[in-house]
Amino acid sequence: MNIPVTFHITLPDEAIKAKLTDKINNLTKPKGSLGRLEELALQIGLIQQTLTPALRHPQNIIFAADHGIVDEGVSLSPKEVTWQQISNFLHGGAGVNFLCRQHGFDLRIVDAGVDYDLPQDKGIINLKVRRGTRNYLHGPAMTEEEAALCLERGAEVVIRCHEEGSNILSFGEMGIGNTSSSSLWMSFLTGIPLAQCVGAGSGLNTEGIRHKYEVLNQAMHNYGGDGSPVDIIRWFGGLEMVMAIGAMLQAAQLKMIILVDGFIMTSCILAASRLYPEVLPYAIFGHCGDESGHRLLLNALHANPLLGLGLRLGEGTGAICAYPIVDSAVRMINEMDNFAHASITKYF
Amino acid sequence: MNIPVTFHITLPDEAIKAKLTDKINNLTKPKGSLGRLEELALQIGLIQQTLTPALRHPQNIIFAADHGIVDEGVSLSPKEVTWQQISNFLHGGAGVNFLCRQHGFDLRIVDAGVDYDLPQDKGIINLKVRRGTRNYLHGPAMTEEEAALCLERGAEVVIRCHEEGSNILSFGEMGIGNTSSSSLWMSFLTGIPLAQCVGAGSGLNTEGIRHKYEVLNQAMHNYGGDGSPVDIIRWFGGLEMVMAIGAMLQAAQLKMIILVDGFIMTSCILAASRLYPEVLPYAIFGHCGDESGHRLLLNALHANPLLGLGLRLGEGTGAICAYPIVDSAVRMINEMDNFAHASITKYF
Repeated sequence: MNIPVTFHITLPDEAIKAKLTDKINNLTKPKGSLGRLEELALQIGLIQQTLTPALRHPQNIIFAADHGIVDEGVSLSPKEVTWQQISNFLHGGAGVNFLCRQHGFDLRIVDAGVDYDLPQDKGIINLKVRRGTRNYLHGPAMTEEEAALCLERGAEVVIRCHEEGSNILSFGEMGIGNTSSSSLWMSFLTGIPLAQCVGAGSGLNTEGIRHKYEVLNQAMHNYGGDGSPVDIIRWFGGLEMVMAIGAMLQAAQLKMIILVDGFIMTSCILAASRLYPEVLPYAIFGHCGDESGHRLLLNALHANPLLGLGLRLGEGTGAICAYPIVDSAVRMINEMDNFAHASITKYF
Repeated sequence: MNIPVTFHITLPDEAIKAKLTDKINNLTKPKGSLGRLEELALQIGLIQQTLTPALRHPQNIIFAADHGIVDEGVSLSPKEVTWQQISNFLHGGAGVNFLCRQHGFDLRIVDAGVDYDLPQDKGIINLKVRRGTRNYLHGPAMTEEEAALCLERGAEVVIRCHEEGSNILSFGEMGIGNTSSSSLWMSFLTGIPLAQCVGAGSGLNTEGIRHKYEVLNQAMHNYGGDGSPVDIIRWFGGLEMVMAIGAMLQAAQLKMIILVDGFIMTSCILAASRLYPEVLPYAIFGHCGDESGHRLLLNALHANPLLGLGLRLGEGTGAICAYPIVDSAVRMINEMDNFAHASITKYF
C-alpha cells in the first residue's frame, strides 16, 4: 500500500553545525559540562538554522478517539473514560492542564474519532473521521480512505498552529485502548516479539495483561494485509494515532520541533519514521514512561529521552514536563557569556 | 571530635500521610500514573504538614572558596577560576544565571573562603573564614574553630533566606579543587574505596585522574585525626562545603525543602546526614551528574535523583533544572480535579 498523503521533509542542513558547536564550546563552563543541554542546543540550532534559536508559542495538541478493540476487554478503563476525560480537559482539572498552565502551553483538543457526541461549542476541534475504529481482531480498524483523512487532518491542525506562530509542538492522546494499537505497531514495525511490547496500560494486573496479549496475538495472527508500514498503521491504528502521524510529519515539513510524549506518541513517531525517516531529527523525546515496552521502543529508535519520572498518563504530560529543559538549552546558547568576553582563563 | 554547633532537627510528623495519599490517589488519573510527581507531592506535604503545599521564594545559594590541595595539581582548572567565575556570576553570564532567571530563583553568592579580595560592593555576602584551606596532604584543611565558624555562618545565611520568606533553597558551590574533598569525604563516610570516588572534575584526562587519585590516596594515608565524621569533614573539607553543611542542617531545622545539586553538594548532604540523619527527609535530589562516583554516592544515600542530564557544572545548576518538576508536583496536588467532582468513572 502506498502512502496516501505526500509530505516534503528535508533533513536539517549541517553546514551550520561547526559554528554552533564552536559557540557552545566557548560558553563559560568546562566543555561538555552542561550535558544534554548542549546536545539540545545543537539540535535546535540545526532545526532552526541559526546560532540564536528561539521557542515560540508552544502548544500541546491532544488527539482523541475510541477503539473498537476495547470490546475484547483489553483495557482496564471503560470506553466512556475517553469523553469523560475530554470534559475534564475542558474544565482544566486534568494532569495535562496544570502542566500547560505551568509551562505556558496552549492546549488544543482534537476529536479524531471519539464514540460520543461531544459538545460543539467548547473549543474542541471537530475533525472526527468516524465514531471509533472497527475492532481489528477480525479486520482492519480503518479503511485506506479513513487513514488518508487522518493524515490530512493531523497536518491541517499543525498548519494552523504554524500560522499562529508556533515553532514547537507537543502531541498527546486520549483514547482508551490505544496502548494495544501501539504494541501492535511496535511489534510489526520493529520486529520485537509482541510479548515484550504489551504492558499494563492504565493499570491491568498480570491476568489482564495475559488476556490483552492473547487478544493482540490473535489479531496479529489474523492480519491479512500487504505488510507495508502504511497498511500496518491503518489496520491496527487508532484514528487519533494516525492523525498524530500526519501532525508530526507536517511539523517536520515546517521545520518545527516535535516534543514526543510517552509510549503511544513514541509508537506514532516510529510509524511516522517508517514513512519518512527524515522526521526524526525534528523530534525531542521527552520522557521514558513506565509502560512496559517503552524503553525497548526508544532503544529501537536510538532515542535517549530527557526524563524518566515514571509517568504513564499520556495526554502529552511527559513531553510538557521536559519543556523547561528544552527551554534551558535555548537560554544557554543565547544568554551565557563566552570565555573571551568574561575574561576567564580557558582551561581546556 | 564532637559536633561544634548544635542543630534541632525533627523528622516530619507522619500523621498526615494517610490524608495526603488519599488526596493524591483520587486525582483524575490512573493511580500512580504521575510517578515521581506523586512521590514529591507526598514528601512536600509531609515537610510542610499540609494538603495544600506551596513553594515560596526559591533561592540558590552558591558558597565559594579555594582549596590548598590545588597546589598538588589535582585540578585541571587553575585556582584563579574560582574568583573569575564569581565575577561571571555577578555579571549574569554563567550557567547558573540563566537557570535562575528561567525559574525565578534569587541568586546569593557567599564568599566562604576565596583566596582573593573580592569587591565588597557587588552583593557578595562576605563570610570569608580564611583565604582558602590549608593543603590537607600533610595536615587538616581547617581548624576545629574554622569548621565551627563555617557551620554557624552557613546557618546564618539560611536564617536570612527564611526571614525573607523562602521555603525552598538550592545550594551550589564554586571552588576549584572541591571534587577532591568530596571524593575523600565520600570514601571515608561510606567506606567505598577511594578509586571509585575519584573522577575527572572539570575535565582531567586519564593521566590527570591517576595523579589526583595518588595525591588523595596519600592524603588519606597521612590522615591523623580521630575518625569521627566531624573530624573527617574539617580535615578534608572545603570551607564552602562545610558552610553548605551548616546551611542544609539549618534548612532542615526550619522545615525548608533542600534541593540537592551535583557530586559536591551530594557529598555535603551525606556529611550533614552523618551529623544529623534527620536532615534527609527534607532533601530532594535534583540530578545525577557525570562525575564518576556520583551515582555510587547517591546509591549509598538511597537517593533517586529527578534528572540525569549529564551535567557536571555545579553552581546549583542540576538542582535548579529539577525545580520545575518539584513545582509540577505541588501544582498537581493543588490544581488537579478529583474523580468524584469531575464525574469520571473511577476504574481502579
